Amino acid sequence: MRDFDESNITDAVIDSLAQTKDARLKTIMTSLVRHLHDFVRDVEITFDEWNHAIDFLTRTGQMCSDKRQEFILLSDTLGVSMLVDAINHRMPEGATETTVLGPFFVASRPDEPLGADISHGAEGEPLLVEGSVSSPDGVPLEGATVDVWQADDDGYYDVQRPELQSSLLRARFRTDKQGRFSFKSIMPAFYPIPDDGPVGEMLGALGRHPNRPAHIHFMIAAEGYETLITHIFNAESPYLDSDAVFGVKNSLIATFAKNAGNGSGRVLKYRFGLKSLSQERQ
Amino acid sequence: MRDFDESNITDAVIDSLAQTKDARLKTIMTSLVRHLHDFVRDVEITFDEWNHAIDFLTRTGQMCSDKRQEFILLSDTLGVSMLVDAINHRMPEGATETTVLGPFFVASRPDEPLGADISHGAEGEPLLVEGSVSSPDGVPLEGATVDVWQADDDGYYDVQRPELQSSLLRARFRTDKQGRFSFKSIMPAFYPIPDDGPVGEMLGALGRHPNRPAHIHFMIAAEGYETLITHIFNAESPYLDSDAVFGVKNSLIATFAKNAGNGSGRVLKYRFGLKSLSQERQ
Repeated sequence: MRDFDESNITDAVIDSLAQTKDARLKTIMTSLVRHLHDFVRDVEITFDEWNHAIDFLTRTGQMCSDKRQEFILLSDTLGVSMLVDAINHRMPEGATETTVLGPFFVASRPDEPLGADISHGAEGEPLLVEGSVSSPDGVPLEGATVDVWQADDDGYYDVQRPELQSSLLRARFRTDKQGRFSFKSIMPAFYPIPDDGPVGEMLGALGRHPNRPAHIHFMIAAEGYETLITHIFNAESPYLDSDAVFGVKNSLIATFAKNAGNGSGRVLKYRFGLKSLSQERQ
Repeated sequence: MRDFDESNITDAVIDSLAQTKDARLKTIMTSLVRHLHDFVRDVEITFDEWNHAIDFLTRTGQMCSDKRQEFILLSDTLGVSMLVDAINHRMPEGATETTVLGPFFVASRPDEPLGADISHGAEGEPLLVEGSVSSPDGVPLEGATVDVWQADDDGYYDVQRPELQSSLLRARFRTDKQGRFSFKSIMPAFYPIPDDGPVGEMLGALGRHPNRPAHIHFMIAAEGYETLITHIFNAESPYLDSDAVFGVKNSLIATFAKNAGNGSGRVLKYRFGLKSLSQERQ
């Protein structure tokens, strides 16, 4: 294999994959090479532009740490995360829609009893969340694990505040016999995704704002069901129509109602439906 | 913009580029989003696969240092570097063909007088290089700068040997009135690209070897001419037909001839032609 030019190098690279043992990997790499080369050919990338891309990707990797995942942000802001989500979650009737995981989920989070206050006194408008988890046909799911995490009143997650010694606005619950869970919190604020890195530079160059509408993250798991990763968005938030990561779905927008009892405080009620794993195989 | 699915998210992301001020950036990003999304859709990437890709790219960035550029290796091994080269170097008759820069060029290198020995006594078969630089129509170019760098007898570049205090097998010369340059060195060995990182993992999974045929790098610059970045390959080397970075061109393969005078030692003679910048505008 010698003397490659723009008309024959793509086939040469694909030929070099002939010895790939994993058939799925071979399929993926063949498609990747074809699309990547087509992109370079279509816009006739210059050396300066390719060097810029190499530098951008390098800095994106080097921005990553155990508290920051810049490549997930890049994937989110280019709509790839939501595309992967759409392809892998063609949801049946009765199952809650999904959205991006985002970069702020962390594996270490406290288990809390139902009704716990996960704000631990943080400032903000009080919020009571009352949820339920069921199968698509309405059967309550007892003992489902419900992970919740959210931004605070300033739009920051706990992992963005290095001064914090422990989790804040982040916990795991288990549903009761009726499939219910509840917790006390504060209203989440809308916020910009971290924009002090390469992805922020990119958004700036593209004339895009970095903001996401206010939401609470949920990850709900129960045996025999597909784990649900989603948000519930506040219907009153700005940016519902220009989410920086393309994550908003109408079915996930809810009213955080004013508490009828007293002037301050809100209540969110939401019924989550999980997709049965046996449905997936149908 | 809400409720995106796999059929409409690509247009939504492209719509979000509407405020991009730089028209070229808008063109590039529009094409990138379309091809990237088409790739994800074509192979129906799963969550696990996408997470693997995010992790791979993150580790690729984190492998980079001032002596290692893993993203260039990735670009090289997927044939993208040679494709960018082909698109940007449609060479006229009489101009030497180009190939990849590679990850081992460094900005700090010693200026040496013509005839200098850049091996500084390193072990290997002695080599004399005698080159000349001219315009495509054969006019000698005086005062052109000629950067050379190469692997040693074990297949390593100086920057891969942390114990070295100064440059080795790397220098910059200036051509004389007849456009000539010469230097003493040793024969370069074929070598594997650095394969202890993510790119090495990838090559392993694809059943590909990491080797490059033996070569010497040249970067030649003269006012009024396009800077030439190329290699000269040893016609006797293995891997000329399976270069891990797809960089071999027949016109760049040369005989490193046995020195007629004595039993040991080789001579490489090569005439380089630079492309005139005024040709480029024709």
